[in-house]
Amino acid sequence: MIEPTIADIKEAAARISPYTHRTPIFTSATVNRLAEAEVFFKCENLQKTGAFKARGAINAVYSIAKDSAGNGVATHSSGNHAAALAYAARCRGIKAFVVMPENAPPVKIAAVAEYGAEIKFCPPTQKDREETLQAVVRDRGAVAVHPYNDHKVIAGQATAAHELLEEVPRLDALITPVGGGGLLSGTLLAVSASKRNTAVYGAEPAGADDAYRSLQAGHLIPVQDPDTIADGLRTSLGNLTFPIIQKYAAAILTVDDPIIIGTMKMLWERMKLIVEPSAVLPVAVLLHRREQIRANRIGLIISGGNVDLDYLPWQSGSKRKE
Amino acid sequence: MIEPTIADIKEAAARISPYTHRTPIFTSATVNRLAEAEVFFKCENLQKTGAFKARGAINAVYSIAKDSAGNGVATHSSGNHAAALAYAARCRGIKAFVVMPENAPPVKIAAVAEYGAEIKFCPPTQKDREETLQAVVRDRGAVAVHPYNDHKVIAGQATAAHELLEEVPRLDALITPVGGGGLLSGTLLAVSASKRNTAVYGAEPAGADDAYRSLQAGHLIPVQDPDTIADGLRTSLGNLTFPIIQKYAAAILTVDDPIIIGTMKMLWERMKLIVEPSAVLPVAVLLHRREQIRANRIGLIISGGNVDLDYLPWQSGSKRKE
Repeated sequence: MIEPTIADIKEAAARISPYTHRTPIFTSATVNRLAEAEVFFKCENLQKTGAFKARGAINAVYSIAKDSAGNGVATHSSGNHAAALAYAARCRGIKAFVVMPENAPPVKIAAVAEYGAEIKFCPPTQKDREETLQAVVRDRGAVAVHPYNDHKVIAGQATAAHELLEEVPRLDALITPVGGGGLLSGTLLAVSASKRNTAVYGAEPAGADDAYRSLQAGHLIPVQDPDTIADGLRTSLGNLTFPIIQKYAAAILTVDDPIIIGTMKMLWERMKLIVEPSAVLPVAVLLHRREQIRANRIGLIISGGNVDLDYLPWQSGSKRKE
Repeated sequence: MIEPTIADIKEAAARISPYTHRTPIFTSATVNRLAEAEVFFKCENLQKTGAFKARGAINAVYSIAKDSAGNGVATHSSGNHAAALAYAARCRGIKAFVVMPENAPPVKIAAVAEYGAEIKFCPPTQKDREETLQAVVRDRGAVAVHPYNDHKVIAGQATAAHELLEEVPRLDALITPVGGGGLLSGTLLAVSASKRNTAVYGAEPAGADDAYRSLQAGHLIPVQDPDTIADGLRTSLGNLTFPIIQKYAAAILTVDDPIIIGTMKMLWERMKLIVEPSAVLPVAVLLHRREQIRANRIGLIISGGNVDLDYLPWQSGSKRKE
């Protein structure tokens, strides 16, 4: 399959604009000082549904032909993609089916339910999730929308970097988190199409560093037993996102959880913005792997702000297994 | 003394602009739906030092004549005004002396110390604080800058509403928190000078409702044993702020702490913004005293975002007496 082009990204930007925010770009004197750079935060935590995932989900859902869309859409993500898909389906006036493990955190169940999705609970194994999703697709005729391994989703995620480059044209570097690779690969395509001299880095938790390992090995290595607070980044790259990352990314840089948690608290304190652990990765990498990023003007995509406010990672005894 | 005029406010706006942010104005689909109104959030939590107080402190510090400023400035606030005064003094390159009670929360001490102020600790009584401040003024020649009962401070705080009205000209109502009354009286003057038909409300915690009582009685009634989570609003109106509020305010509306805490959590979840308890008051009043506010387009001043992230008010066992 041919990777999305700049035409696809522009088409996505036009398609999603009625249903998504053009998110603000913030700066922080504190972060500039610590990084010894000019840093621009593209704040997707202020996006509809609280994460960039709304971009890809809207682009995918509105790209489905009318004949096929009538039976709704489906996914087995339990995180930000599930809420985004539910939101996108509600915007289009179709059904969303979301397969969630029985032990999913109540706050995530509530977020998906609030957007009007029909939730299908299943035992908490990958096999059960996939089988339950297949059953929904088979029995209800719903269209499955993958959280990242889908060119419409990738083109949608690309619009965040596309907007950032429109407003801040000269960037030496751009950093995004990397989980399944939808945001990173979309960003890479947007930057590549811009013909600018901007190095793009993926920021990954050390406890789920499959992108780093896959690039080193030259082939996809799925993550085994991911162990990180960054719940949005525990997934593995897909066969559509990996080749794009392999082709264009400057590097994958990793940091461990204590750094992620410390940086998260610093951002809450200094920028007064609620950012989720996964969204902290670009800042953590910027401040703690600085010597590997040769750049003076740096864009960061702050991917989301969905946090269970009753369990904050810097509070002792509040860490919660999912 | 004559209250600040629109010329004073414009002068303040010009004076503070190199050292303060023109803060963004946000909207929230959730709040609009709940309030059945178009609501505009002037986000002073994103202001320098994390609160609108930077405006008044900068205006006051830069208004001191060169001959008098050399010995520095002083205050006995331990909250946002202290950090703002320390910041303003650092901008001007003069000393700041901040008198704080020995039992002040470490997070507040750190904030003031970080801006380079010299901290003078004293026993935690109002009398000790005032005497220690007087000693600093007498012995060091520092100029005391009151947190709100000062026309330069009031003119500085007025610039927030001034900016909001520039960007959102047609507002039926504007709501600010009220503690000592600096922000509310400044807002009233800015709105009054604008000649627009905008009703201005003060939002006050029921546990520190001296502004409400003072307006009812027609004379200043200082607060007795304030009991509220909104730590920035435990103070009493001053003899400069009260007459302005008496003359121009549409009403003072109060809500109790459980409403403040619930609204605060909702704002963190929905808007992904860190707002402190005092800053929540305008939203809490809008949603819970809606019938008393006849307006369709409503501006709110979100006064600050300085919160001890280790003690969040909705977490059981985390409430901390100060």
